[in-house]
Amino acid sequence: MITRKEWEKTRDRTVEILERAGIFLTPGERDGIEVADFGLGDLAHTGLQLVVYVNTERYCAKELVLFPRQTCPEHKHPPVGGDPGKMETFRCLWGNVYLYVPGEPTENPHCKPPEGREKFYTVFHEIALSPGKQHTIPPDTLHWFQAGPEEAVVSEFSSTSTDESDVFTDPEIKRITKIEPKKGGEIGG
Amino acid sequence: MITRKEWEKTRDRTVEILERAGIFLTPGERDGIEVADFGLGDLAHTGLQLVVYVNTERYCAKELVLFPRQTCPEHKHPPVGGDPGKMETFRCLWGNVYLYVPGEPTENPHCKPPEGREKFYTVFHEIALSPGKQHTIPPDTLHWFQAGPEEAVVSEFSSTSTDESDVFTDPEIKRITKIEPKKGGEIGG
Repeated sequence: MITRKEWEKTRDRTVEILERAGIFLTPGERDGIEVADFGLGDLAHTGLQLVVYVNTERYCAKELVLFPRQTCPEHKHPPVGGDPGKMETFRCLWGNVYLYVPGEPTENPHCKPPEGREKFYTVFHEIALSPGKQHTIPPDTLHWFQAGPEEAVVSEFSSTSTDESDVFTDPEIKRITKIEPKKGGEIGG
Repeated sequence: MITRKEWEKTRDRTVEILERAGIFLTPGERDGIEVADFGLGDLAHTGLQLVVYVNTERYCAKELVLFPRQTCPEHKHPPVGGDPGKMETFRCLWGNVYLYVPGEPTENPHCKPPEGREKFYTVFHEIALSPGKQHTIPPDTLHWFQAGPEEAVVSEFSSTSTDESDVFTDPEIKRITKIEPKKGGEIGG
């Protein structure tokens, strides 16, 4: 859980990073920025900031914002009902992002998993994304990603997003579908 | 049809506009920029420049670039086979774009259809898009759009794109699926 004050500070920083990358949000979008700490209470190391532009029953588009060295932890999007699982394309807009997927572990990778959570990271084939580079992840495929030493912005184009069905390797992680300020000054994480 | 020289000039201008908007392309994407004159041979007035980031059987993402006052002519995306027709979200990234859809005709609209083709424009409800504003168009719904007095960049998030099934109101229009330089210096339009 993060406090409203922390959420507001994180939102302002996220808006600033997006504007530097040429992305402008409506006031409603600014207030709807999702701050995910994945329940670990260590946003600086394991966390992600998201703006959902559109999520229909057919497609979804988001911007993902990462602070320096912040990690989106290892997870996959399994089949749900008749759906084969979410398929997604990450396109780097700003900064550098390192994406890890199944395959030959990369020698001398640019990133390490967050300290203390190493055992919940199992895929180490690195794909380096700089502005203009993109990579598509098939459904039901483990992946995690981390920003380089600077902030990063990644556009995500995908099939329908159903965060609540994501499967994380780390059993302590809880991904809440929508993280927005709640009444009483507390925010889901 | 446009010549290779015209295509190269248009490509360079498109790349420049995208870079100003913070969008960087790989060399392969630059060479794959689609220049659509819709077969009318009047690109400055009826035309569109496109970069397709990804087009899978589940979703599609593109950047659309418009020169000042350039118009993407009226069309719709009808059902194809088991598909209900393409659904798309336009999000303005740079400049101003005016989108026209069915509904009450807007008084004093910002745009007029291209001269000489007026009779092939039938929907006049205006949606003004500036950076950060977006609008979603349901399948099988007529629409056209025009840039304001400046260049414009629009991100398009959608279900799978099958340009060859688009239906244009103007019977002279021919939308070729992929317009890229062909051998011999001639390019499809």
